[in-house]
Amino acid sequence: MVNTFGNLKKNPPLVHNITNYVTVNDVANIIIAIGGAPLMADDINEVEEIVGISSVLYINVGTLNARTIDSMLKAGKVANKKGIPVVLDPVGVGASTLRNETVETLIEEVKIDVIKGNISEIKALYSNAKNAGGVDVQAEDIVNDGNIDESVNFLKGVAKALKCVIAATGAIDIITDGEEVALIRNGHAMMSKITGTGCMLGSVIATFCGANPTEIINATVTAVATMGLAGQYAASKVERLGEGTGSFRTYLIDTMSMIDIDQLEEGALIDVL
Amino acid sequence: MVNTFGNLKKNPPLVHNITNYVTVNDVANIIIAIGGAPLMADDINEVEEIVGISSVLYINVGTLNARTIDSMLKAGKVANKKGIPVVLDPVGVGASTLRNETVETLIEEVKIDVIKGNISEIKALYSNAKNAGGVDVQAEDIVNDGNIDESVNFLKGVAKALKCVIAATGAIDIITDGEEVALIRNGHAMMSKITGTGCMLGSVIATFCGANPTEIINATVTAVATMGLAGQYAASKVERLGEGTGSFRTYLIDTMSMIDIDQLEEGALIDVL
Amino acid sequence: MVNTFGNLKKNPPLVHNITNYVTVNDVANIIIAIGGAPLMADDINEVEEIVGISSVLYINVGTLNARTIDSMLKAGKVANKKGIPVVLDPVGVGASTLRNETVETLIEEVKIDVIKGNISEIKALYSNAKNAGGVDVQAEDIVNDGNIDESVNFLKGVAKALKCVIAATGAIDIITDGEEVALIRNGHAMMSKITGTGCMLGSVIATFCGANPTEIINATVTAVATMGLAGQYAASKVERLGEGTGSFRTYLIDTMSMIDIDQLEEGALIDVL
Repeated sequence: MVNTFGNLKKNPPLVHNITNYVTVNDVANIIIAIGGAPLMADDINEVEEIVGISSVLYINVGTLNARTIDSMLKAGKVANKKGIPVVLDPVGVGASTLRNETVETLIEEVKIDVIKGNISEIKALYSNAKNAGGVDVQAEDIVNDGNIDESVNFLKGVAKALKCVIAATGAIDIITDGEEVALIRNGHAMMSKITGTGCMLGSVIATFCGANPTEIINATVTAVATMGLAGQYAASKVERLGEGTGSFRTYLIDTMSMIDIDQLEEGALIDVL
Repeated sequence: MVNTFGNLKKNPPLVHNITNYVTVNDVANIIIAIGGAPLMADDINEVEEIVGISSVLYINVGTLNARTIDSMLKAGKVANKKGIPVVLDPVGVGASTLRNETVETLIEEVKIDVIKGNISEIKALYSNAKNAGGVDVQAEDIVNDGNIDESVNFLKGVAKALKCVIAATGAIDIITDGEEVALIRNGHAMMSKITGTGCMLGSVIATFCGANPTEIINATVTAVATMGLAGQYAASKVERLGEGTGSFRTYLIDTMSMIDIDQLEEGALIDVL
Repeated sequence: MVNTFGNLKKNPPLVHNITNYVTVNDVANIIIAIGGAPLMADDINEVEEIVGISSVLYINVGTLNARTIDSMLKAGKVANKKGIPVVLDPVGVGASTLRNETVETLIEEVKIDVIKGNISEIKALYSNAKNAGGVDVQAEDIVNDGNIDESVNFLKGVAKALKCVIAATGAIDIITDGEEVALIRNGHAMMSKITGTGCMLGSVIATFCGANPTEIINATVTAVATMGLAGQYAASKVERLGEGTGSFRTYLIDTMSMIDIDQLEEGALIDVL
């Protein structure tokens, strides 16, 4: 954690984002806040060159459309060729055929380094990929919110099958590459009361991975813990001042722009299984 | 008001938004703040499925384009078929032929439950629809900002002709279904000093309608009063602290995330004619 | 400065923006804050009419795509025909062939009144235009960040060659029409720690130009000084309260909504060479 955090501060990565228009401003601001430099570009005629100057690619399908889907796919392939990490945020997968097919195509045609989603999205993504003929864990049978062990086992299976790090967010975040598993108990319920915390987390993971391309799982763990801790700090300030969710959003960015390694070492609640 | 507010808190609706990219983040945050769950999806290949899981559809033409216009139309028709409310925000109608034609087509081909706009937009929308061969009230002759009675009569005519609830915003908001009329004197001038209060109000109306599909006019009245009261609270805090419009935007979301039925009962300024 | 500021307060311009979706909300809010009225419209079928009711056109290529590039070009031509100012923000020019070609086409086919960019963007834009066969100053040989005189000379050459005002932003902002030169030493390093200060500045320049169409260079100087001073005030508040970049963004809009001519006269650090 110390190393991955320090690497980010020493080597600010350029983060290429193809992301949704709902939360894109927060995504850009949080990338800068934590120490990266965001680039947003989604026209198919320039994604190759933009990936070419970037350290990492973040793909978020939140408001996908026919035009941007092609750009996501092309950018992902170019990122693979260049050897930079690719982080996928399958927002809303399971809600429509278009999302299912897009995410499935991305997973099939692009080597993804990290998939970040809530447990329902990971389940939907996996179930869908499986149905399309592939992996073999029975998601429906295994995932059980009341049972962390079963969730962990399911997610390990997904990570192995998809050959990537899975970051499944929830009250307890579970991060695994199929072998190693980290549980993170940071975060605050208020994070679900604004839009974009999921997207922001995805882009923060990408930022850490961009600065730590050979330590993907460690970078992901650090990103999730940092963001969760920032959420706790921001919620604490909101509660102290009797404010609401608008202020929470502001303080979340504030905290991310100020958090340091000492706070992280003291506040991170990480269990390595 | 008590019932419609309570229903929203008890049954958080999924609100499908096809809205402009300028204020979409505020729209998402205010929907969550007041108790709904926002979904943004505008690709024509998924709007049918997204409407399928939603409680209400909010269409805002603020930054319409050829691609999204088709999606609005399709989503509206699917919403009608499913029987969920449709709220239309004809942003900037009257400013271009594209907006006029789009709004006219939407009104003709989709059963709209609520149209929310400022008095100029309602006038433009109505005048345009009329010219295209249809309704018969002479907007130009009737609407007069200094004369609330004439505005009310004009808006009742529009509501009757278009068979929907009209929510005309201004210093005094007028809401009518052609029979019942409510005047709302909440709100604050500072609300016009940030972008997006109109869009946010449209989405808040949609959120209340999603939770109260059989009480559209009551839901609309509650939404407008709640938003106006939140604007007053936020402006009051800004004035007390000597702050500006950036803080006002934050406090508006804050207030919407904290406002309760007691505050609303005490602060709502509603006259039913 | 007094006149251009006063004209804006007396005659609020309508500012038509074709801008990127990352920072569009901040752009709209800062235009209102300083006294203009923003319009965002980018469908090719309505840009002509929207330009027709506007006082100024702001083109920002931040998230350009095939669809919006055509709209930028058409809007620019219509603005020229109508005789309203056009402000160009060549975000990220130099980063992709698509950006280079788009900016080059815009410069060739539209009479631009102000180009606002950081020194790298101006260099890239100019170098690119030159390579495409045209102007003759050797950017690579002249620009030197450590040497303000050489930067000024380079920028004067660009302004003369492109027949427009160049506003090159940095620690010291340089504004020139090829003859007159103003150096502005307002601003704060924190302005680079949020997304959108560049876009906001571009739109603020457009707002001042819209209110002062016959005083383009003075309007640009006033805009840059005002924004820089607002950044100083906002940063000072953030430092005093021990807050971060989320709050800075809020305070920047706050300050722009409250700044007056007295503050500007006292705080503006403008050297006219």
